[in-house]
Amino acid sequence: MKQKPKAPIKKRDLKLTRQEILGAAFLLVLEHGFQGVSIDDIVKKTSLTKGALFHQFPTKLDLGYALVDEVIRPLIVQRWIEPLEGLADPLQGILDLIGTCPASILRWGCPLNNLVQEMTPLDPVFRKKLQSALAFWVSEIERHLLRARAAGLLKKGIDTKEAAYFIVMAHEGFYGMMKGLGKPVAYQALLNSLKIYFQAISKTGAKDDASGSHE
Amino acid sequence: MKQKPKAPIKKRDLKLTRQEILGAAFLLVLEHGFQGVSIDDIVKKTSLTKGALFHQFPTKLDLGYALVDEVIRPLIVQRWIEPLEGLADPLQGILDLIGTCPASILRWGCPLNNLVQEMTPLDPVFRKKLQSALAFWVSEIERHLLRARAAGLLKKGIDTKEAAYFIVMAHEGFYGMMKGLGKPVAYQALLNSLKIYFQAISKTGAKDDASGSHE
Repeated sequence: MKQKPKAPIKKRDLKLTRQEILGAAFLLVLEHGFQGVSIDDIVKKTSLTKGALFHQFPTKLDLGYALVDEVIRPLIVQRWIEPLEGLADPLQGILDLIGTCPASILRWGCPLNNLVQEMTPLDPVFRKKLQSALAFWVSEIERHLLRARAAGLLKKGIDTKEAAYFIVMAHEGFYGMMKGLGKPVAYQALLNSLKIYFQAISKTGAKDDASGSHE
Repeated sequence: MKQKPKAPIKKRDLKLTRQEILGAAFLLVLEHGFQGVSIDDIVKKTSLTKGALFHQFPTKLDLGYALVDEVIRPLIVQRWIEPLEGLADPLQGILDLIGTCPASILRWGCPLNNLVQEMTPLDPVFRKKLQSALAFWVSEIERHLLRARAAGLLKKGIDTKEAAYFIVMAHEGFYGMMKGLGKPVAYQALLNSLKIYFQAISKTGAKDDASGSHE
């Protein structure tokens, strides 16, 4: 979202042009799906001409691929990975990040998950790029789990690759299910249950008691 | 799937006609999505005329709603709930059911999750029916968790409603993410991680050791 400058760009700064197009496309695709958005819709949301867009993205698919590589991947890093760097307890850090989930995700779903649902059955290049973004996210989370292990925070024998998959996919999947179902209670269930899971894999236990806050 | 009799139905048995239509529609929608399938596609897969279909389902949406109420809900009961009835340890039973996930789910996704992703943003009646099916599933799982509690298998203070949400949505979400991503390793991660979670909420601990089978 931060990549969408509102000021009109008149000089041909290709990088800024590209960012403006991708920023507009990102928001439209989040709301309407990739197939629900046309090149004309995207042009209308920018200060640019259709020609300028086609100069950067010869086809709509090219634009879609760039959304994954140049917007969604950096967003994953910014939202889920960077805040963990340097934290003494990455496990608690991951829980805290899930706990501050923005309302937009509950409303529109996660951009990555939406595209997985919509585009992996339809286009092999999309599938490959989405698969790569997901694998990258998992490996980055695993890197922090390995940090937790090195700090003596993980129980012996925990498979960090499996734990990383579970953490990423459980909450990604949750966002997918909650989208449209309007069940904020489910989000609390995700958070409290992941807390129980984290306590089970960590040596020290997370902050709160395993019993959760209810009953 | 069992609801699709192959023998042609000539006599006007309305119930069988309905089942034949829904059985054909279910498989087509699983493969191509609701919007990717036409009434003509469905008629072609049955022994019936288009008139016979419209007699039962005046619109394609009516057919879609019936898919949720008359096919997907009973499938949930048959696949995920009935096998738990009478089991002394419902927690282990749920894990065993996830462990025997059919390959079709990994390939085509879960029929309920697919429709949630595709139709909840588009149609409020679909949303309501899908929401109701999901809530029903959660409440049935909770009924078995309460049975586990009564049998002294659950740790004190576990919120059974939250645990039921987590169990249903984590694995539903997983199916959604795995569809098209071609990562069987992720499925093992789901199973082993849910095992750790189940051990954490149960008094006795599940069969295996919390360390999982890897490393």
